Amino acid sequence: MGKYNAPVTKKGRQNAVDSLKRIADFALKKDVTLGLEVVNRYESNLLNTASQALAMLDEVNAPNVVVHLDTYHMNIEESDFMQPILECGSRLGYVHIGESNRGYLGSGTIDFSQFFHALAMIDYKGVVTFESFSSTVVNEQLSNALAIWRNLWDDGMDLAKHAHEFMAGGINAAAKAREHH
Amino acid sequence: MGKYNAPVTKKGRQNAVDSLKRIADFALKKDVTLGLEVVNRYESNLLNTASQALAMLDEVNAPNVVVHLDTYHMNIEESDFMQPILECGSRLGYVHIGESNRGYLGSGTIDFSQFFHALAMIDYKGVVTFESFSSTVVNEQLSNALAIWRNLWDDGMDLAKHAHEFMAGGINAAAKAREHH
Repeated sequence: MGKYNAPVTKKGRQNAVDSLKRIADFALKKDVTLGLEVVNRYESNLLNTASQALAMLDEVNAPNVVVHLDTYHMNIEESDFMQPILECGSRLGYVHIGESNRGYLGSGTIDFSQFFHALAMIDYKGVVTFESFSSTVVNEQLSNALAIWRNLWDDGMDLAKHAHEFMAGGINAAAKAREHH
Repeated sequence: MGKYNAPVTKKGRQNAVDSLKRIADFALKKDVTLGLEVVNRYESNLLNTASQALAMLDEVNAPNVVVHLDTYHMNIEESDFMQPILECGSRLGYVHIGESNRGYLGSGTIDFSQFFHALAMIDYKGVVTFESFSSTVVNEQLSNALAIWRNLWDDGMDLAKHAHEFMAGGINAAAKAREHH
């Protein structure tokens, strides 16, 4: 998850495609699906946007490889929280919900309403996972790798309950809006 | 501008305060103002929010040290684009306007309207600078340090003209709204 020193090379990208083909083939036999998480520029120089992930999926060309989007990373790299979801459509296989500052949902700048509406529009039925970090509970190495320099919470249970209500509310509201569209 | 491997230590922070006191003192004699730019977690472990910068200003306690905010970094670290500006008030001395993806203004997720309204509310009269990066014109070392892995533009003049119109439009609209408040 460290920062790269240069853009990905043609050879480096091809290595990733070739490796993924082999891994996907092996995973298929075990009935395992691979999700490629799109992350921001400080964690990868390969897949920073949904478009780039879809292009890689086309090349890997395996039925068990899907796109994994994360609102925290989308906030840095994408134009908005709707287009990438619509572009992925049925190839979106996993979702991370994270606030722009990686703290409590609603405490940052992300337009979650737009994101939940987009999930409803593509009839997304996959898992929706909440992610947040605080060095009070997350181990030191991971905290430092993720650049968690200040703690936005220390009560993990309160954080989780709040996130569950926030996400359920947003997802239900989007489903209702879709129903009465 | 690289990523740190650990949070800032008490000693490290104190060294920064002590150095800034000496630099501010020297700068004052030359009639120079120092702006402390608040940047995101991947570029600094010291000042990621306006609140942290204001606390440091209090400790440095020099008349010629101001806060410098940048919308690109605020999008990752702050709760919104208004509170930090209001909190700084007259201690905001410099402003960078950058989109969330560092490309064309309006092509990302930042609520610039909120930001310009906040500047009007504190009657900000300082410089407003536009920043954007593309490895087609920015040198390789800086591009790599800033993790510019994909180019969102190549015509710098078109980008600059667009940014000037965008900013003038936003600033003027905010001033009008303030007038008729």
